[in-house]
Amino acid sequence: MAVRQGRYTLNLPSRPSIIGNAAVVGKTEGEGPLKAEFDHIYTDDTLGEISFEKAESTLQREAVIRALDKAGKTPAEVDFILAGDLLNQCIGTSFGLRELNIPFLGMYGACSTMSLSLGLASVLVDTKAADVAVASTSSHFCSAERQFRQPLEYGGQRPPTAQRTATAAGASVVAAATPEKPCVEAVTFGRIVDLGVKDANNMGAAMAPAAAQTIADFLTDTGSTPQDYDLILTGDLGLVGTKLLKELLQKDHGVDLGDRHADCGLLLYDLEAQDVHAGGSGCGCAGSVFNSYILRRVTAGELKRVVLVATGALMSQTSSLQGESIPSIAHAVLVSAPQNIL
Amino acid sequence: MAVRQGRYTLNLPSRPSIIGNAAVVGKTEGEGPLKAEFDHIYTDDTLGEISFEKAESTLQREAVIRALDKAGKTPAEVDFILAGDLLNQCIGTSFGLRELNIPFLGMYGACSTMSLSLGLASVLVDTKAADVAVASTSSHFCSAERQFRQPLEYGGQRPPTAQRTATAAGASVVAAATPEKPCVEAVTFGRIVDLGVKDANNMGAAMAPAAAQTIADFLTDTGSTPQDYDLILTGDLGLVGTKLLKELLQKDHGVDLGDRHADCGLLLYDLEAQDVHAGGSGCGCAGSVFNSYILRRVTAGELKRVVLVATGALMSQTSSLQGESIPSIAHAVLVSAPQNIL
Repeated sequence: MAVRQGRYTLNLPSRPSIIGNAAVVGKTEGEGPLKAEFDHIYTDDTLGEISFEKAESTLQREAVIRALDKAGKTPAEVDFILAGDLLNQCIGTSFGLRELNIPFLGMYGACSTMSLSLGLASVLVDTKAADVAVASTSSHFCSAERQFRQPLEYGGQRPPTAQRTATAAGASVVAAATPEKPCVEAVTFGRIVDLGVKDANNMGAAMAPAAAQTIADFLTDTGSTPQDYDLILTGDLGLVGTKLLKELLQKDHGVDLGDRHADCGLLLYDLEAQDVHAGGSGCGCAGSVFNSYILRRVTAGELKRVVLVATGALMSQTSSLQGESIPSIAHAVLVSAPQNIL
Repeated sequence: MAVRQGRYTLNLPSRPSIIGNAAVVGKTEGEGPLKAEFDHIYTDDTLGEISFEKAESTLQREAVIRALDKAGKTPAEVDFILAGDLLNQCIGTSFGLRELNIPFLGMYGACSTMSLSLGLASVLVDTKAADVAVASTSSHFCSAERQFRQPLEYGGQRPPTAQRTATAAGASVVAAATPEKPCVEAVTFGRIVDLGVKDANNMGAAMAPAAAQTIADFLTDTGSTPQDYDLILTGDLGLVGTKLLKELLQKDHGVDLGDRHADCGLLLYDLEAQDVHAGGSGCGCAGSVFNSYILRRVTAGELKRVVLVATGALMSQTSSLQGESIPSIAHAVLVSAPQNIL
C-alpha cells in the first residue's frame, strides 16, 4: 500500500492497472508520424464548437468517454477523476467534464499534468481510497496561442526554440491489478526547480532541469539506471530541452541516458515536414502520445518498463511580463507491461 | 486506511491530525472581526513586493512557513505540499513555494482549494502514502481584481451581490494521529454542478448548488444530520449564496441547516462597516478563517465537530466573456476536536 522507497518515490505494491486509455487529436497531430495510433483524429480543429476553448473541452471529454468505454466502465462507476489543463482556471477541464457527474479533483501541473494525475490516481487505487480513478488532460494549439502568445490572426513569428502546443487530449482509467493490462509500479512526485531561464519561447530549456532532478531522484530512490528501463519518456522537452536534459543528467548526476530516452514532443510531429520548430508541447502532448503509441507498445510487451516523466512550466503570461523566471516541475510514473507477459 | 462510506465519502480510520496551522492576512482582513485570530497581519498589502502577484506568493509562503514552524517540522520533513490559488496558472502558489524544495502536487479548485488540498493531504497521510503533508492556498484582493475584473485604478463599481476577494493565505500541516491535535475524520470530494448561473458578480449564487449537493452527499453517506455537528462551515457563499444554500438543502434534500451553518465569507469581515458588499471570497477566505479562528476553537474543544465545505467557481474571465455559465464545486472535510478532549 504505497510503500515509500527512498526520499521521493512511492512504490505501489498492488500494481494498479491502466484498464483503459484513449487519445484524440487535431488535424496537424493526425498528419504526423503517430497518425495510426490515435482513437480519433478531428479534421476540423474547432470540433464544431464556437470557440477554441469549447473545442478543447470537447476534446478532453471525448478522450475520457473513449477511455472509459474501452475500460468497460461508466462514469457512475468512477470514484474520482483527476484532471487539469493549461487554460486560465483550467476551463478546458471543468467545462469538459462538468456533465460527467464524477467526483472531481482539479490538478494544476501545466504540461506535467498527465503524470501528476496518473501518478495520484494510481496512488489512490493502490491505497484502496479508490476502486476506479481516471486521469486526463488536454491542450489546444489555438486556445493556447491566444492565451499565452498572440491570437492566430496576428500571424506572429515564432523563434526556432519555440514548440507547438498540441491539439490533443489523453485519458487513462486506473483500477485494481488486472493481469492482461499494463500496470503502474511506482511514482515520484517532483519538486519545483527554477534555474533562472526567462525565455517563454524556450520552454524546453526551462523544464529540462526539473526533468533531470526528478529522473535522478527516481533512479536514486529505486537503485536503478536508465538501462533498467526500455524508455525514459519525457513530456515535451523538444529538441532544445532534450539536449539540455542529457547534459544536466551527465554533468550533475553522472547519469547517461544512452539510447533509453524519448520525448513525446519529438514523437508527435515530423519536425521539419510539419514546421513545428523545436517540437510539440502542451498537456495534451504527453497525454496523447502516452495514451496511444506508448501504452499500445507496453500492452503488447514491446516495451516492458517505461518511465513517463511529463514536465511542466509553472509560469503565466503575467509572471513573464513581470520579468520573472520560469519555475518548472516534472513527475515520474513507472509503467510496466501486463503481468501475464512479463 | 480510507474506508469508503457510501458513494462519495472516504472515512479516515487513522484520524490524521492537523499538527500545525497558520493564517496570514492583509490590512482590511486584519481590521475585521477576526483580527485577534491571525498569525500575522500585513499593514501594507504589497508586502514590500513590486507586484500584487508577488505579494500573494509571499503571503502563501509565509502561511506555510509559519504552519510548519508551529508543527515543529522543517520543509525537508514534508513528503508533499498540495496547494493552489486563483491566479492564472496558479502562480501565487508556484512562485510562493518554489524555494521550499518540497514535492509539489498542484491543485486547482478555485475557492474550494483549502478543502480539496486538506482533504487529499489527509487521505495521503491516512493511507500512509505520506507521513507529513501540507495543504495551503492564497488569494489577494488586488491581483484578483485586475485579473478577473478591472485594475483597481479603474475604480469600477461593484454590485451588491459581489464579494471581496480576501487578501489572505492559510496552511495546514497533516500528520499521523496526535491526541492533543484536531483530526480529520472524513472527506467528501464533490462533483461539478452547473445550474446555469452566468453572473460573475454573483459567485455565491453560482456556488450554492455545489455546496448543497456536497453537504447532502456527506450527510447521506454518513447517515447524519446537521444537528450532529457544531458547524457546517461553507467557504465563501456570502449573503446571497448562504440564503440559497439553505433554500436548496431544504427544498431538494429536506435538510434543515438550522443554527449549524456559518460561512467564512461572512465571518471574515464586518460587512456593513467594511463595505464588502455580500461578503468575502477567494481561496484565502476559507484558508485563513479555517486555519485561525475555527481550528483554534476546535483545538480547544469549543467546537467538537466541524464540516469545512469550501466552494469554488470553476470559470475564467474568458468563459464568462464567451457567455458560459459558471460550473462550481465543493469539497467537504470533517474535522474533530483532539481525541484527548472528545
